[in-house]
Amino acid sequence: MTTRVSVDFIASDRVSITDRGFTYGDGLFETLRIVGGRAPLWPRHEARLALGCERLRLPLPDMSAIRDEAIRLAEGLDDAAARITLTRGTGTRGYAPPPAPRPTLAVSVAPLAPLVLDTSASVDGVAVRLCATRLAIQPLFAGLKHLNRLEQVMARAEWDDPAIGEGLMLDTAGDLVCATAANLFAVFSGTLVTPLVDRCGVAGVARAEVLAVRDVAEVRLNPARLAEADEVFLTSAVRGILPVRVFATRTWQPGPVTRALQAHWRGIGLSSPTGFEGPDR
Amino acid sequence: MTTRVSVDFIASDRVSITDRGFTYGDGLFETLRIVGGRAPLWPRHEARLALGCERLRLPLPDMSAIRDEAIRLAEGLDDAAARITLTRGTGTRGYAPPPAPRPTLAVSVAPLAPLVLDTSASVDGVAVRLCATRLAIQPLFAGLKHLNRLEQVMARAEWDDPAIGEGLMLDTAGDLVCATAANLFAVFSGTLVTPLVDRCGVAGVARAEVLAVRDVAEVRLNPARLAEADEVFLTSAVRGILPVRVFATRTWQPGPVTRALQAHWRGIGLSSPTGFEGPDR
Repeated sequence: MTTRVSVDFIASDRVSITDRGFTYGDGLFETLRIVGGRAPLWPRHEARLALGCERLRLPLPDMSAIRDEAIRLAEGLDDAAARITLTRGTGTRGYAPPPAPRPTLAVSVAPLAPLVLDTSASVDGVAVRLCATRLAIQPLFAGLKHLNRLEQVMARAEWDDPAIGEGLMLDTAGDLVCATAANLFAVFSGTLVTPLVDRCGVAGVARAEVLAVRDVAEVRLNPARLAEADEVFLTSAVRGILPVRVFATRTWQPGPVTRALQAHWRGIGLSSPTGFEGPDR
Repeated sequence: MTTRVSVDFIASDRVSITDRGFTYGDGLFETLRIVGGRAPLWPRHEARLALGCERLRLPLPDMSAIRDEAIRLAEGLDDAAARITLTRGTGTRGYAPPPAPRPTLAVSVAPLAPLVLDTSASVDGVAVRLCATRLAIQPLFAGLKHLNRLEQVMARAEWDDPAIGEGLMLDTAGDLVCATAANLFAVFSGTLVTPLVDRCGVAGVARAEVLAVRDVAEVRLNPARLAEADEVFLTSAVRGILPVRVFATRTWQPGPVTRALQAHWRGIGLSSPTGFEGPDR
């Protein structure tokens, strides 16, 4: 698998050890899927990146140039996953942000090959577990896809059983927020709900797409209540809509809301590369 | 000012954009002072780094080799500040840590020149403000000097008045924890106290030194109570013991406990490079 990379629009896979992304996690990232040279969810990625820049007081980058760079690197690939990392750039003066930061942009694109087990997760669903690692409540950064990801790393380190597709995470108040690298949805008697991401968690781009095309209630949700759902699924910009088949003692068959959203996903040009465990989810 | 650098013991100032330090802030750092080829507080830096490795499940590095590398880079410098960054190394499989990670070690050393205003902060003390940015409560990482430092960055971004020497930070429960890049101590009727760092904050190496040589009560402390203190000071491995001269409407003269600890600092070989606003505090 060849990964194509650039740093500040020049072919390179290296950044300075004084880059604030490396020293402090001082930046943002986006992970997107590019199919046949198109990034169907790009406007949502752009919106989240812009919100992140505003919240972290990063200068707003040229969004079209970023999109074009990702698409350029994906040239000739039928299906690709891109990671875009935007940091506050280099700095040598401690935590204080440089008065005129020159952000670093790193882009990497890798082919997204259908795997042998391509269809199983999308068709049959995935088993999920509950992580012991909890998300701290920090409204200042809630919803952003910033580079401070130790909580997700430690949560994902809790299991290595390949039969487990994802781990659900609670916040420190005990409410479900999301999976380590996906958002969570559930259907109760025809009502579609997703956890609020106002105190922590990432407001996923796939989650935003679902919110735009369906009536969804954003709620606090605990594990006991989740087990009573009629349908449960995960959303990810790269992995799409993944039915949850098993959680704790409960099992489900993929339900009609899940299937309808998978059809919507295909409709916007994002078929299911399921089973993918690729770079930079 | 020449900075001397190495990555994995080879002269370089570059790391891969797939380094997990850059992609997720998945690692730890130490900032230390090296005076005449000696790092007096090294055993405490080593202890914190080892604790961090255990908590983040990083393989324990060869600590002597790390110390030797920092001291080698400081060769010929009378007084230097070193930053040691240890990450989980490169990885391309999402949040899941590689089963056999090969950590990245980046070391940078810069001369610590006495500035023109050298003595003022140490002799007269510094003015501190209260930051609006709060620390999330996350016991899992409390005390560690990990690479997820967005809270400190945003707190430090709140002011650019050079008359303000530091900013104090509350946790989301409203208790004082530390300054953006230093720990906090106060004296009440002869009792020395410092905020607990069991829920968030960094357990500073200079803080550990004070705890080792004085009776100190680790407590919850709020700003109103702090304003009633007889003495207030900050501690930093690089900046030493800094009296607090002004906080809110309160002013202090450096007191006897502060002065005694400054004398202890000189005694272990760490004179006052005060006023320093150098790299990688």
